[in-house]
Amino acid sequence: MSHLLPVDQAFLERARARQLRLTKPPGSLGRLEEAGVRLAAIQRSEKPRLGPGAVVVAAADHGVTAEGVSAYPAEVTPQMVQNFLAGGAAVNQIARVAGAEVYVLDVGVRGPEFPAHERLIPARVRSGTGNLVREPAMRPAEALAALQAGENAARRAVSEGATLLAAGDMGIGNTTAAAALTAALLGLLAAEVTGRGTGVDDAAYARKVQVVERALERARGELGDLERADPLEVAAQLGGLEIVAAAGVFLAGAAAGLPVVADGFPVTAGALLAARLEPNLSGYLFAGHRSLEPGHTRQLEALGLEPLLDLNLRLGEGTGAVLAFPVLRAAAAVLGGMATFDEAGVSEG
Amino acid sequence: MSHLLPVDQAFLERARARQLRLTKPPGSLGRLEEAGVRLAAIQRSEKPRLGPGAVVVAAADHGVTAEGVSAYPAEVTPQMVQNFLAGGAAVNQIARVAGAEVYVLDVGVRGPEFPAHERLIPARVRSGTGNLVREPAMRPAEALAALQAGENAARRAVSEGATLLAAGDMGIGNTTAAAALTAALLGLLAAEVTGRGTGVDDAAYARKVQVVERALERARGELGDLERADPLEVAAQLGGLEIVAAAGVFLAGAAAGLPVVADGFPVTAGALLAARLEPNLSGYLFAGHRSLEPGHTRQLEALGLEPLLDLNLRLGEGTGAVLAFPVLRAAAAVLGGMATFDEAGVSEG
Repeated sequence: MSHLLPVDQAFLERARARQLRLTKPPGSLGRLEEAGVRLAAIQRSEKPRLGPGAVVVAAADHGVTAEGVSAYPAEVTPQMVQNFLAGGAAVNQIARVAGAEVYVLDVGVRGPEFPAHERLIPARVRSGTGNLVREPAMRPAEALAALQAGENAARRAVSEGATLLAAGDMGIGNTTAAAALTAALLGLLAAEVTGRGTGVDDAAYARKVQVVERALERARGELGDLERADPLEVAAQLGGLEIVAAAGVFLAGAAAGLPVVADGFPVTAGALLAARLEPNLSGYLFAGHRSLEPGHTRQLEALGLEPLLDLNLRLGEGTGAVLAFPVLRAAAAVLGGMATFDEAGVSEG
Repeated sequence: MSHLLPVDQAFLERARARQLRLTKPPGSLGRLEEAGVRLAAIQRSEKPRLGPGAVVVAAADHGVTAEGVSAYPAEVTPQMVQNFLAGGAAVNQIARVAGAEVYVLDVGVRGPEFPAHERLIPARVRSGTGNLVREPAMRPAEALAALQAGENAARRAVSEGATLLAAGDMGIGNTTAAAALTAALLGLLAAEVTGRGTGVDDAAYARKVQVVERALERARGELGDLERADPLEVAAQLGGLEIVAAAGVFLAGAAAGLPVVADGFPVTAGALLAARLEPNLSGYLFAGHRSLEPGHTRQLEALGLEPLLDLNLRLGEGTGAVLAFPVLRAAAAVLGGMATFDEAGVSEG
C-alpha cells in the first residue's frame, strides 16, 4: 500500500491567483478553472501540463452471478477481455480519440488463462469471487493481492508514459458487488445503492436488492459494524476483485503524482475503498462522469466530487473516465498555457 | 447563401440498428449514442468518422458599447484578436488539446487593420456596428457581406482539412447585440434573454436590459413584427457582425457536410439566425455546452438542442464548442469503430 502525500495547498492558492491574471473575465471558464487549480496542486506547478493518459480496465468474475442478478451470462467477462485486447470495445474507441492507452488487467476472470498480449496484464488472484450471499467474496490476503495487482498495473502505465490515469471495470455481476460494498462503506441501505446494472428486468432487480441485503447481513455477522470495520476486510467480504484492483490503480496513480479519474458505479466503489485506505486520495481524484446507476450519485457525494460529464452513460469499462481526459487536459492547458493580461497587452475590466 | 440538403433520415435508422449490434448493453452509452446516429446521418455513413476540427473565431466591435453595457473597454476586441493570433487565449489552448485549428475572422473590428498572419482572415465589412439603440447596427447589404465572410472562412477551414466545425466570437458588447437579436427572433422580452456578459454590476445590468428594450422598440418601428420580418434584416438592425458571420460559418460548414457546433450566447444567436435562414441546419447542428448566460438556455430550447457539456463556462471565443469536439469524436468512434456481438464473439444478454 502507498503512503500518499496530500496535494500541495500552496499551489492551489498560487494557481487561483494565476487564473485571475489570465486573459479572460475572472471565473469565466467555470469548472475548468477549478479543475486547473486542482491539477496545479497535484503537479506542484502553477503551470500544469497533461500529456498521454491511460486506463487500466480491471476484469474479474463474480460468484454472485449464480443468483441471477445480471442481464448477461458470466461468459461475457472473458469474451469482453478478448474484445478489449482486439480493440473492439467502447473503451478502445473512446481511448483512441481521447489520447489514452488501454491496459487490461485480469485480476480474477474465470476460465482458461488468456494468451499473452502486449496490453494484457495477467494477475489472476483467483478464478472469480465466492458468492457473497453465502460466503466471503475472497480472503483478506486475496483482497490485498488484488489491490497490489491494481497498483502494479498503474505503475506500469506510469512507467510507459501516462500522465493521467483512469480505472475501468469489466465483470458480469459487478454492480451487485459494488452496491454491497458501497452500502457497507457508507452505511446505506441496499435499496439506496442498487440499480439495474446492464439492464435487468423488475423481477431480477427485486432479487438483486435482496441479494445485496443478505450479503450485508452476512458480512455484518462476520465483521460487526461495516462502517467501522477494516475497509479491506469489508472489501474481502463483499468483493469484487476488479473493484479492489481499481482502488489499487487510484492509490498508485496518486502516489506517482498523477491525477486519477473515477468512472461509473463499480470503479467508484473502488475509489471509495481507496479513499478509506488513504484519505489524502481525495486531492488527486476526479469524477469523470455521472452514471445513470442511482448509487453512483451517493458515491460521488460521499467523495465530495462533482462529475465533469453527464451524458447518461452506464457502460463502465472506464468509458466515462477516459471521455473526461480531454476536459482535464483543457483545464491544464488553460492554466498552464494562456497569456496573462500583462503578457498579452490586454486591458483589464 | 447555401441551399442546405436535409441530413439523411435513412442513415439515422441504419445507425440506430447498428448501435444495437455493438458490444455493449443497448443504450448504455446514452447521449454518445444519440450523437453518433446524428453524425451518421450527416456523413451519410453508418460508420461515421471525425478527424481534425476547426473553429472560426469571428471578431467585431459594437457601437452599443457607448451605452456602458460591458465590463471591459472596446479596445479589448483588437487586443484579443492579437492574443488569438499569438496563441495566448483560452480558445487556443483548448483547441490545441481538442484537435482543432483556430481561424480568426476580422469581420468588423475597429481600429487599424491587423498585420497579415496565416491564421487571420481579414474581411472587415465595416468598423464596428452602429449603436443599435439609435440606428441600425448595419445595412442589410453589410449583413449579407458578414454572412458571406463567415461562409468563406468556413470553406477555407474545410479546404484545409476540418471535419468538424465550430464558430467562436470576440466582440466587447456582443452579449447586448445577441440578447436583442435573440429576443427579436424568438419573440421574447429583453429581461428574459439579457445576462451579465463578462460580468457587469447591477447598475450596468439594468442599463443593459433597457438598452435591449429600446433597441427592440426601434427595430420594430423599422420592420414591424420582428418574428415575421426577414431574419437577415432583423440581424442588420440588431447586429453584430460577428454574430451574423457565425451564422455563415454554420451554413457553409453544414453545406459541406460537416457537423457544426454552437458555442455560447452570441454564437448561438448566430445559430438561431442560420436556422431561420435554412431550417435544414438543425440536422447538422450540435450544442457544445450550456453557458451561464440565461438567454442561452432559451436559444437551445428554440433550436431543440441539449448541450453536450455543462461546465459553467461563460467566456465565448468558441471555447465551449471546441471542448465538445472530443465528445463528438468519441460518439463517431464508438459507432464507427466498435465490434458487433457477432464480430467479437460476445454473447448477447
